[in-house]
Parts: sequence; C-alpha cells; structure tokens
Amino acid sequence: MKTIDLNCDLGEGFGAWEMGNDAAMIELASSVNVACGFHAGDPDIMRRTVELAKARGVSVGAHPGYRDLHGFGRHPILGLKASEIENLVAYQIGALQAIATAAGHKVTHVKAHGALSNVACEDDMTAKAIAAGIRAVDPSLIFVVLANSKLVKAGEDANLSMVHEVFADRAYEDDGNLVSRKKPGAVLHDAKAIADRVVRMVQDGAVVSVTGKVIKMRTDTVCIHGDTPGAVEIARGVRQALKDAGIAVAPFKRAP
Amino acid sequence: MKTIDLNCDLGEGFGAWEMGNDAAMIELASSVNVACGFHAGDPDIMRRTVELAKARGVSVGAHPGYRDLHGFGRHPILGLKASEIENLVAYQIGALQAIATAAGHKVTHVKAHGALSNVACEDDMTAKAIAAGIRAVDPSLIFVVLANSKLVKAGEDANLSMVHEVFADRAYEDDGNLVSRKKPGAVLHDAKAIADRVVRMVQDGAVVSVTGKVIKMRTDTVCIHGDTPGAVEIARGVRQALKDAGIAVAPFKRAP
Amino acid sequence: MKTIDLNCDLGEGFGAWEMGNDAAMIELASSVNVACGFHAGDPDIMRRTVELAKARGVSVGAHPGYRDLHGFGRHPILGLKASEIENLVAYQIGALQAIATAAGHKVTHVKAHGALSNVACEDDMTAKAIAAGIRAVDPSLIFVVLANSKLVKAGEDANLSMVHEVFADRAYEDDGNLVSRKKPGAVLHDAKAIADRVVRMVQDGAVVSVTGKVIKMRTDTVCIHGDTPGAVEIARGVRQALKDAGIAVAPFKRAP
Amino acid sequence: MKTIDLNCDLGEGFGAWEMGNDAAMIELASSVNVACGFHAGDPDIMRRTVELAKARGVSVGAHPGYRDLHGFGRHPILGLKASEIENLVAYQIGALQAIATAAGHKVTHVKAHGALSNVACEDDMTAKAIAAGIRAVDPSLIFVVLANSKLVKAGEDANLSMVHEVFADRAYEDDGNLVSRKKPGAVLHDAKAIADRVVRMVQDGAVVSVTGKVIKMRTDTVCIHGDTPGAVEIARGVRQALKDAGIAVAPFKRAP
Repeated sequence: MKTIDLNCDLGEGFGAWEMGNDAAMIELASSVNVACGFHAGDPDIMRRTVELAKARGVSVGAHPGYRDLHGFGRHPILGLKASEIENLVAYQIGALQAIATAAGHKVTHVKAHGALSNVACEDDMTAKAIAAGIRAVDPSLIFVVLANSKLVKAGEDANLSMVHEVFADRAYEDDGNLVSRKKPGAVLHDAKAIADRVVRMVQDGAVVSVTGKVIKMRTDTVCIHGDTPGAVEIARGVRQALKDAGIAVAPFKRAP
Repeated sequence: MKTIDLNCDLGEGFGAWEMGNDAAMIELASSVNVACGFHAGDPDIMRRTVELAKARGVSVGAHPGYRDLHGFGRHPILGLKASEIENLVAYQIGALQAIATAAGHKVTHVKAHGALSNVACEDDMTAKAIAAGIRAVDPSLIFVVLANSKLVKAGEDANLSMVHEVFADRAYEDDGNLVSRKKPGAVLHDAKAIADRVVRMVQDGAVVSVTGKVIKMRTDTVCIHGDTPGAVEIARGVRQALKDAGIAVAPFKRAP
Repeated sequence: MKTIDLNCDLGEGFGAWEMGNDAAMIELASSVNVACGFHAGDPDIMRRTVELAKARGVSVGAHPGYRDLHGFGRHPILGLKASEIENLVAYQIGALQAIATAAGHKVTHVKAHGALSNVACEDDMTAKAIAAGIRAVDPSLIFVVLANSKLVKAGEDANLSMVHEVFADRAYEDDGNLVSRKKPGAVLHDAKAIADRVVRMVQDGAVVSVTGKVIKMRTDTVCIHGDTPGAVEIARGVRQALKDAGIAVAPFKRAP
Repeated sequence: MKTIDLNCDLGEGFGAWEMGNDAAMIELASSVNVACGFHAGDPDIMRRTVELAKARGVSVGAHPGYRDLHGFGRHPILGLKASEIENLVAYQIGALQAIATAAGHKVTHVKAHGALSNVACEDDMTAKAIAAGIRAVDPSLIFVVLANSKLVKAGEDANLSMVHEVFADRAYEDDGNLVSRKKPGAVLHDAKAIADRVVRMVQDGAVVSVTGKVIKMRTDTVCIHGDTPGAVEIARGVRQALKDAGIAVAPFKRAP
C-alpha cells in the first residue's frame, strides 16, 4: 500500500493570540512543523502542540523562522551572516527539542518557515546555513526541502536525510518551480482539483504544470495549510481522496 | 588539595549591545552561566560564549530568566503559572544545549537569573517549577542553588544534583540569608575583604554574618560578578587569594 | 435626554494576529481605547482602528500597558520606578497621537490597560505616575478612572479632567470595589441582567452589590468587552436596553 | 559668520545596555537624532537624551528605524508596504514628541536610521513613505536628507523643509554618492583629514571625490559618529578645525 505524509504548520499563535485551527488540522496531518518562538510560537504553545502531536501519533518537526514576530516571519531580512542563520536555526531546534523531551516526544525533522525558506530556496548561502544549523545540532534530523529548490543541494552537501515537499494548493511552472504568488493562478482554491492533484502526485510522482506539462517530481510529503479560508475543508478533501485511492497517510520515514 | 568553583554570568549582551567584560572574566571563572535569549543573550552571543568557555576548559550552564529584555530580567513578573515557568526554563536550556552541541561543548548546569531566581528563592511554586523544567529536559543537569533558599528544597524534591552557591560580595544575615540590597552594607566593595571572605568560606565552610556570627554554610561555588565597577579587579583578588591559600579553582563536579 | 458613554478596548491584535471583533464592537461603542504597541497593537492596527473610529464618529483614547506583548499586558511587572511608568505612558500616548493626526482624528482620553491599571488601582505610586505621564504630554487629555480606585485621587492631584468608569459585567463589593476575579460570581454572563444593571447605573447613579446593597456610584462611561465569548451579544443587549430606556449613547464630554 | 550644524545619533542604548558616549558627543553636536524604540532607545533613554539636549541647547530630531532591536536597525527588511513604513515613521515621531513635550523640549527634525535610510536612499517607495509619515504627523518638521539621494526628491514632493547632510568620515564617488562600505577606503579614519574636509565642505560647498574631482554639494549639516573607535576624538578635531576657520557650529534653521 502506498503511503504519503501530509505536513502542516502548527502552533503559530503567540501568548494570547491564536492562529489557524490546530485542533482540526492535527486530525488531518501526519507530521507537523512547530513554530519555535522567533516568528510565532512560545514555550507554552510549543508544549501544547507537541503534546497534541504525541497524543495523535503525529511526527513533530522544528519550524524555524527569522526573528520577526511582527511580520510573522514573512519579511526577508537581509544582511545576516551564514553563522547567524546557522545559530538561529540551531537555537530554535534546541528549544523545541527540550520542550519535546519534556512532553515525552521527539523532534524528527526541520522545515524552514516563510521568508527564511523562500530566501533559502533561491540563495545558496542561506540554504547551506540552514542545513549547517540542522547538522550541527543533530545529523539524524530529517530536512524537509521544497522539491527543485536550492535546499536540495544544501541538504545533500550537508549529508542530511531529506524528504521532498510539494504544495497541494500551489501551481507549478514548467520547470518545476512554484508559480510566483504575484501571478494570477498561483494558489489553487478548488477543493476537488486540489485533492485530485495530490492523489496524482502520489500515484504518478508527477505534477501537471500551468501549461499542462507533466513534470516528474519526487513527493515525500504534501504541505497542507491550516490558516487560510476554507483550509480545513480543503485538507479534509485531500485526506478523503487519498483514502478513496487506497493511499495511506503516515509520517515520512528517514531514508535508510 | 581543596578546590572551589568560581561561577560568573556571561554572554549578557544582545545584538549590537555588549555587557560586562567577558574576555577578562572567562580567565577567572571555572564555570559560566550563559544568558539564553530571554533577559539577554542571542544565538550568536551564546555561540561565542560557549566557544570561549570550551577553549578555556570552563563548564557551561544555562542561565534562564524571565522574558524581559528591556528590564534585563530584573523585574519580577507576577501571575505566571507553574507550567509557564517550567516551559520557559526548558525552552532556554534546550536552546543553549543545541548551541553548545554545535560548538562541540556541553551544558552541565542551570542557574536561574535575576528576578526569576530572586522570586524562586522565596516562592515554593516558582522554585519547584524551575526544578521541574530542568528535570524535564535532562535529570542529570546540575542545579545551582542559593544556599539556604527555597531552591534547595525544590531541587531535593526533584531529585536533582545540586551545588550550593554563595556570593563573594554580599553580606549575610544571622539566619544565612542575604542582606537585602535595600539595606546599607548589602554589597561589599573592598577587594581584600571579599577575597579573605571567600578563602574562609572554602576553608571553614562558614561565613561571618553582619553581626559577626559564624554561620556554617555549604559552599560548592562562589559567584563572581563581571558587570559592576571594579568587578574584574575584585575577581582577580579572589583568585589570587585562593591560590595563596593553596586552594585550586576548578569546575564543580556532579555529586556522586 | 440622559446620555452615557460605552467604551471598548480595540486594536488589540499584533502583526498577523487578531483579537476580538473590532468591526462589530465599533458599532456599539461611543469611545474606544486603542492599544499602543506595548501589550498589543502596532502602528498599522492603530491606524486602521483610528480610521474606523473616525468614520463612525467615535472618540479615541490611548490604552497604554506594560511592555509585555507575550503576556498581553496582564502580568504585573514589579520594580518599575515612577519615572519609568510616566515615560512609558507618555511614549504610548504620543505614538497614538501621531497616528491619529495622520488619520485626521484626535486622541481625547487615556485609559490604562490590564495589569498596569490593576496595579495602579491599588498602588499610589503607579496611579500618580500614570497621571503624571498623561499630564506631561497634554493636560487636556481626559483620564478614564475606575470608580473608587486610587486612580481617582491621582487624577485629582494631577488636576486632570476625569471620567468615572464602571464595568457592565463585573460584580461589586459593598464598598464599591470590584469583586476579585478569583471569587465566584466576579463576572456576570447573563445578557439581560447585565443590560438591566447598566440602565440602572445610568438612571440611578447606583449599582447593586453582591449582597444586594445599593451603592451610589458616579458613572460617566461603561466598559463593554469585545474579546470574551458572547461579548458582542452582551454589548448589543446593553445598547438596546439603553435605547428602550430612552438613554442616548454618546462619547463622554470633557468636564467644564 | 558662516555656521554649520553637526548632527549625531544619540540615545541608542536599550534598557540596561548602553551604546556610544552620549555625554561626550552632546558637547560636540548642535543637533541630535534620538532613537525611538524600534532599533534602539526606550522611553527612559529618550527622556534622558532629550533632557540632555535641552540643557545643552541642542536641537532634537526623531531617528526612526525598522522594527529590529536585535539587528540595531541595520538589516533591510523587505516586503513592507508603503503604508507600513509611513505608520512606523509616524508612530516613532509621535512617541518622541510626547517625551520631548514631557521634558519641555521640542522635536524639530527627522532623520531615518540605518537600513531604513539606506534602503530609502535608493528606493522611491520607501523614500516617499518616510516623507509621507513625517508630513502626516507635522508638515513643519525638517527632513534631514542625504545629499544626492532619493530622499531629496521625496522630500520635495511632500513639500517638506529639508536640510542636506554630508558625512564627515565617508568617501564620495565622482557622482556624489557615498562609496559603498564594501569598498576599501569607504570610511576615513584620519582625524586631521576629516577635519580639513569638513571645513572645506562648509567653506566651498564642495567635497573632493576619491578620484580627486571637486563635487559641488549643498551641505546644511555634517553627520558625526559617536559609536566607533576614536569617534569622540575625530568629532573634537572637526569642532576645533571649524572654530579655527571661523565657522560657528549651530543648529540648522528651517528654510524660510
């Protein structure tokens, strides 16, 4: 039986503020990426999120971002040195590891958040620094990388185990890159179309581009969103379509 | 040969701001307490501080404080739940552990900072929550406790290995508590008197109170300050006096 | 025709995080207290909130709090000097004044938020420091004070124009103080009872205590909440009950 | 008698952290730019700085920066909308205005800090947004602009009174732009050469470029730094050289 991982960003509140619908999304995901306090999240939210994940048998990953609470980690911050990026990634992973240990769970993977990820997908220095930060803390951590991005090479060079991620609700160019959010049609909204697409990705290892071209793409995990309108319904549709197609949803495994 | 540990708070800058004279103090201390980003410190400063400590063969501990950069962790923040204190301690320890791992060093102890420590010395709930946070992350971490404070009982109840700390430059009441900083004479400034006092603490296991009473006091580590005027000279005096008395300065050991 | 002001805290999001239902509450309030960035709020949210208030003809006040984003300004922060409280109040008022000017509106009053208010209600130093901060920026600003608290005397001593506030949904002791939130029954939840109570406050200038005693109480403004479950419905009930009783809702005026 | 303004950034500490030598620099400058809490500064430091300026008869300006305490406002933060930049500038100006009012002084000018200034010098949108933020708060505020930058046009379009700033210790290209800090020789260190250069700027309205070309340049104010090694000595040299050349140091005036 084929399996696929569905990953979701969770624990993105801060103090009294909440974000998204964690309770609903934890039912649909098989791995979660937990905000670590720099763009969102705090020790208490991290603890609750890890406990929720543990109770549901869901894998937990660190979701480090730029130091940018006000911008939710969505603004590129320029001028950081490689060592600064490495250290901020290491710091955030460690913080979550301690919280996970306290909760009797374990951090298995790392996925960069927002602008840190976007910058790294196109910038070698940032990509390598993220990989270095992961490796420096624990070389057995799995690096979640956007398929076709600079993160792949950085993870290979750092000799990290990787899983390749595709987005359920994003359009792809012919070259396998995401269509820029600045272009119309970059984000898909039709739940049925999204669900069909995910099933095909898993069954065929391919995604259809905006021009109709079939692009081969390694798909280890599919990112589902929890903080946009209709997000929960879309994720439920994906989950159901996978079930109907006889594909199990399960956390990704470390490559042997 | 008798030995004693001299501990010092280090890495208390933030971003472009510096605090104290870390380069001088690392030469004089045998263990250092590293700020973990909540009251001071950041991933880069933590990394540099741990690397410095490693190069000098000095033990590294986490120095967690309240979330209070502006107040340098010196303001009591009321109304936190036990779980919130436990989680913020765990988070900060984990962050430093990751940075230490990245630097090829190890976190061996934990000492609460500023107002978090002051509140805990008199408040059972806070003391227990700090101990719980340490234990939840790693029960082999050594808990640095102020002699005669509520921290001692909390550490015992959590079954943590502890070292008892005295202050080189603080006056003591007859009951073994520190003279409140609000009273005159609470802080000693005479380098010679401070040095003599430390030697006696180590040799006799006792400290002389403000009224002249000799109080037995377990002394595993002596706190030396690096951020007050004349601090470095005072610390040098202590170090020399210990040498003259045939007492070696060395990191504390985990109780067997 | 009698009139009463209904005031509500608004603009308490931060960056990507939202809080409460500002769009609904602005329809029900006649004056709003705008978070100024220390416990919540940011320049963009402040701007939108002031623009909303201007469009609705609603008065705008500054709602300064402790520097405590993570705790939403709900934690007492001890050890601040009077000058520090005065300066943080002045800073926050000025920030909102500039935003209001940019939006073509005006700041008319100041109401302390959360723990800063709670501490000040019982602590002369804090109450006086808040009043001093207001006066130092603009002595014509109206000081919103909790009836029967230390804020009243502080406002008098600073020669500030004041309006006395009561809470629609809080129980009162016989001495006119709020029943502590730690006691059962401190917060009222029955919309009808709350609405009746507000009408009576305005008509009789009195509130009935938990023991049934009628307490005379000056009531210039009634605080309605927007961030609790059922808050909007409760506020709508109050508004309707006032209308039915022939009482107009209008911003408070500066005492002549 | 010719006069020139010497401006200096001041009040760039935060909480317990200090930066630069404000006490020395206030003796040498005729106008100061005060950090407003986003990249540095806090209400108490702002108050002390304004009081110092008032006591010395020195003009006070707001020195708004990006929200970036950790990076000291030196990192470009991308993706901010024009309205966000306008609001953050307005907020910071207003905060300082209130503090200045409380101190019996007045904010007369605005100069953007660090990366916010650097980005604006080359980006129309950012430059215009800064000018819009100033104008929205008080159109009589003077806008300090780097000679030859995009700030000049933005200030003209916003109909703001402007003063043109040159740097005492920076090398200039033939086209009047600053030599990039990434190139060797971008920053001058020889105190005598710097002092001579400033005198010539004031006397001739010209600066000599790195290739020896004489470039006409309007010079209303000269920026002197207080936070680099030897900064105070360099500033003293400039001040003395101006005196020797019969040029008075005095705050710039609003253009009629």
